[in-house]
Amino acid sequence: MDKSRLCIHTITTRPWSIEQAMDKYAEAGIGGITVWRQSLEGRDPEKIGEQLRSRNLSIVSLCRGGFFPALVAADREKAIEENRAAIREAAALGAPMVVLVCGATPGQSLEESRKQIADGIAAVLPTAEDYKIKLAIEPLHPMYAGDRSAVNTMASANDICQKIHHPLVGIAVDVYHVWWDPNLAEQIGIAADRSRLFAFHVCDWLVPTKDFLNDRGLMGEGCIDIPGIRRMVDATGFNGFHEVEIFSDRWWATDQDEFLARIQTAYREHC
Amino acid sequence: MDKSRLCIHTITTRPWSIEQAMDKYAEAGIGGITVWRQSLEGRDPEKIGEQLRSRNLSIVSLCRGGFFPALVAADREKAIEENRAAIREAAALGAPMVVLVCGATPGQSLEESRKQIADGIAAVLPTAEDYKIKLAIEPLHPMYAGDRSAVNTMASANDICQKIHHPLVGIAVDVYHVWWDPNLAEQIGIAADRSRLFAFHVCDWLVPTKDFLNDRGLMGEGCIDIPGIRRMVDATGFNGFHEVEIFSDRWWATDQDEFLARIQTAYREHC
Repeated sequence: MDKSRLCIHTITTRPWSIEQAMDKYAEAGIGGITVWRQSLEGRDPEKIGEQLRSRNLSIVSLCRGGFFPALVAADREKAIEENRAAIREAAALGAPMVVLVCGATPGQSLEESRKQIADGIAAVLPTAEDYKIKLAIEPLHPMYAGDRSAVNTMASANDICQKIHHPLVGIAVDVYHVWWDPNLAEQIGIAADRSRLFAFHVCDWLVPTKDFLNDRGLMGEGCIDIPGIRRMVDATGFNGFHEVEIFSDRWWATDQDEFLARIQTAYREHC
Repeated sequence: MDKSRLCIHTITTRPWSIEQAMDKYAEAGIGGITVWRQSLEGRDPEKIGEQLRSRNLSIVSLCRGGFFPALVAADREKAIEENRAAIREAAALGAPMVVLVCGATPGQSLEESRKQIADGIAAVLPTAEDYKIKLAIEPLHPMYAGDRSAVNTMASANDICQKIHHPLVGIAVDVYHVWWDPNLAEQIGIAADRSRLFAFHVCDWLVPTKDFLNDRGLMGEGCIDIPGIRRMVDATGFNGFHEVEIFSDRWWATDQDEFLARIQTAYREHC
């Protein structure tokens, strides 16, 4: 089984520290790791980066920046500073990319939030250029439009990319957020044509889903046609990682060694 | 305060029987009522229709038909029969329209479900023609794409309408389902241009939302720009009812007389 393009997000095995996660992923022969910022708390990112590379783990991205919109300018400025910090952290770690959960603010229109998102990304771009770090806009499912992201479709993410028009700004496609979209294939094609298809995340949508945040399924447990979406992505020539990003109170409560084994089986059978 | 275009769905005040609801709505001077089928259980729809009209309540629609997709043909045929029954019930009640929650089936693609939805609507159309009952496709929020509706955007509803192309087939716009859509104004315009804007439902999106089904907000409690969407709808010349449709365990647990008073205040201030 080829695991060279399999990547796991540290949040997927949240009960493990980054040290445990890197050992376990490497032992299993998994090709890549995406590091969540909270995994780095109290650590030196440069040292963690060295440890990851010495285990032959490709550092795929740092999760996450974003959350640009806010009602007052001072808060937007704070968010911009925080994103610059994330970019520097990615550089220290040796991650080529920061994933952006763009943000939304109740009390202002989604249009205004989208404008603030574009402005925020533009404001951090010089820092991204300094460190050559890519910024991947992750469109979030419309159920997060209230307070997590005003960018809820691939089309909307493509629009913002088009507006900013910079080779370091692209899109992270997560099947969980976009699987329902009738225009998905077309919009993935547009992103790829413009060299903006930066990342591909997988998990599954459970029926029923019981929690808005932490009830994602392992691939094969839900109703997303993951191989179908992967074919759309593959058809564009995408040769990046398949990143497993699962938030699940249910899976986090289980033995993580067994979970890691199941992730690999699910990757083979349902991706 | 003009309540002539205010309509309330019986499910909004679920603790009340249809008899209680009709007395309370009429006393309050509310113009219209949308009847949920479960309110009619054990009643003669014709008699209920007479009682509603004698109280000067316009019967706006019957909720709901739909749920067309299924893995096996026999189940799809059963759904079609059930929709014919709903149409006959609407006719007996004197409701000019049946609202459709179109359905989705885990285990088949959304494309296939959409095809089955179009086929199902086409199959019940002769019955709708016999009774002159309109069928209103209600696009549902993408968070219901797993098992409640494969029609998740106005564009998708417009596509199905275009395919069927019949004056009795149109769209019910519910702000809860479509508020996040960057193409909303455009798609509402398209629907109206083709005389397909059949209904307009209001409620609000709470931040955070805690339950996938029964945690809707009263207008003004959440983050939807309801006046903004109403302006889009008004701009098309729509002159139908503003239908209050709230599923809320929280509100259902309160005194319904007080809730009805609050609905009227919220309608005046936030719609």
